[in-house]
Amino acid sequence: MKPHILTFESYDDWDTVPLEEAYTVYNLPHGASLDTLPSEAFEAVQAFAFKGHNKLGADIMDAFPKLGMIANYGVGFDTIDVEYASSKGIRVTNTPDVLTDDVADLAVGMVIAQSRGIVGASEWIRSGNWAKNGAFELQTKVSGKRVGIVGLGRIGRAVAERLQPFGGEIHYYSRSPKDCEGWIHHSDIVAMAEAVDTLVITLSGGPKTVEMVGEQAIKALGPNGLLVNASRGTTVDEEALLDALETGAIKAAALDVFENEPNINKRFMALDNVLLQPHQSSGTVETRKIMGQLQRDNLAAYFAGKELLTPVN
Amino acid sequence: MKPHILTFESYDDWDTVPLEEAYTVYNLPHGASLDTLPSEAFEAVQAFAFKGHNKLGADIMDAFPKLGMIANYGVGFDTIDVEYASSKGIRVTNTPDVLTDDVADLAVGMVIAQSRGIVGASEWIRSGNWAKNGAFELQTKVSGKRVGIVGLGRIGRAVAERLQPFGGEIHYYSRSPKDCEGWIHHSDIVAMAEAVDTLVITLSGGPKTVEMVGEQAIKALGPNGLLVNASRGTTVDEEALLDALETGAIKAAALDVFENEPNINKRFMALDNVLLQPHQSSGTVETRKIMGQLQRDNLAAYFAGKELLTPVN
Repeated sequence: MKPHILTFESYDDWDTVPLEEAYTVYNLPHGASLDTLPSEAFEAVQAFAFKGHNKLGADIMDAFPKLGMIANYGVGFDTIDVEYASSKGIRVTNTPDVLTDDVADLAVGMVIAQSRGIVGASEWIRSGNWAKNGAFELQTKVSGKRVGIVGLGRIGRAVAERLQPFGGEIHYYSRSPKDCEGWIHHSDIVAMAEAVDTLVITLSGGPKTVEMVGEQAIKALGPNGLLVNASRGTTVDEEALLDALETGAIKAAALDVFENEPNINKRFMALDNVLLQPHQSSGTVETRKIMGQLQRDNLAAYFAGKELLTPVN
Repeated sequence: MKPHILTFESYDDWDTVPLEEAYTVYNLPHGASLDTLPSEAFEAVQAFAFKGHNKLGADIMDAFPKLGMIANYGVGFDTIDVEYASSKGIRVTNTPDVLTDDVADLAVGMVIAQSRGIVGASEWIRSGNWAKNGAFELQTKVSGKRVGIVGLGRIGRAVAERLQPFGGEIHYYSRSPKDCEGWIHHSDIVAMAEAVDTLVITLSGGPKTVEMVGEQAIKALGPNGLLVNASRGTTVDEEALLDALETGAIKAAALDVFENEPNINKRFMALDNVLLQPHQSSGTVETRKIMGQLQRDNLAAYFAGKELLTPVN
């Protein structure tokens, strides 16, 4: 008999087919509540294939007495109460590393797209303005700018490496200096923001990084500053960021993440100095296939009693 | 008495003010014909501050008997009949190097923006689709892709250097191999197009490169291929490119330049697999100020009888 699992949100066919081959699958679609599940699911489910931006806490875990494993699809597991899971002996896995490239690629793309006005320039030509009204307005140079990376983990390092040939200084914030010759260490985010033109946030989410980039750091970036967030919406004081964008205290922002996704603060929609992306940092076909495979490999290891590939507890 | 010059198109204040300090300036706005100039201009003008995408040939040069110098604003001078200028002893200068960074930055930005759907993703969130209809469709990974640079001059090299940390192979087309370890040389564009995922065109313009990227090379790129043009519209067989985009013979394109600017072929407007940019590759405030300065330095050198800084003949 196949083990029973519960999948959250929707999966592509390349994930659904192999999952249903290996397991009896219940699914909880986006926004659905637990009581939409058939009653036998609660006793049967032994593992979650989790893919959710919503909270996964004690209430949900306790509803499934045989739950022993949560396989998260994604590197960030800040919505999962890992401490509670650990206390119940529930193992949690994620999908690190495999999405590092994509997140770094999009972060660099957001730096260039925002600085060079790529979205506005596309609209300029498609609306016929180029032919009617002439050249698109001049934008901001990318090369030579001083960049500060907030959080030099795997993703932060990948961003810095990609930005290095653009010829500007690379600064980074971390508690202690890391092994990276030529890059400038800061142990204070505000001091780093003062020293750079562009701030790229690549922190992990969770309670330890909440509003780590606060009002002071945002203001320190100054009226020519660009803030790029490719981490989690929680890492930035979003109200302070909106104020700064509205008043010109900073020049621009490029954001892939927000505090309340996908119902983002309406004030963003009125701003033309912010590039908005719908949390698509790992959203490539190539990477999502590998993420799904890693999630299934962790599930398979759990049910085979083998060592988990990428455990977080 | 100040020398008399003729400026073409419009200039920003940071250029107009120093030009008018040094010279008596006549201006020919975009689209205006010579007979709109006051009659005394033809005898008086000794130099052009040229900034035009229109042809500058014998007819215009011959209208100014004292013309001795054409200072072009831009690196490309393919619209100027340099051979005729040389035959009349008219010196021509351009503004090389100072815009290399900007063109390379935009080329890399176009690779990422097109692959990752940055423009469509921005529209997805701003139209409210993220909140209403969920995640944006999956896009194409950038890192690890094989890139082929057509024309490894200063700009091509700057593009390749910026794309190197993305971890894919770097291929390049040039008549003979160049000094660049680890990059793969091709002496045939079609063979290179077959070997790569992304083609980035950084050729110079002019008669020698007309449709150098032809139908065969475009088709060789294949149904997963991306073509990026940051050079001149003339370097690509535009009809063949449009056919390939319409039929799916290639996956996508990102274009900053076109055969007929700014009145580009209307077929482009119907396509959603092409990122369109309004020839803004050197369009940053930082670079345009330096280009204007170099243009003026060349003019000043000419009138002082000194060696020109960046002559092309």
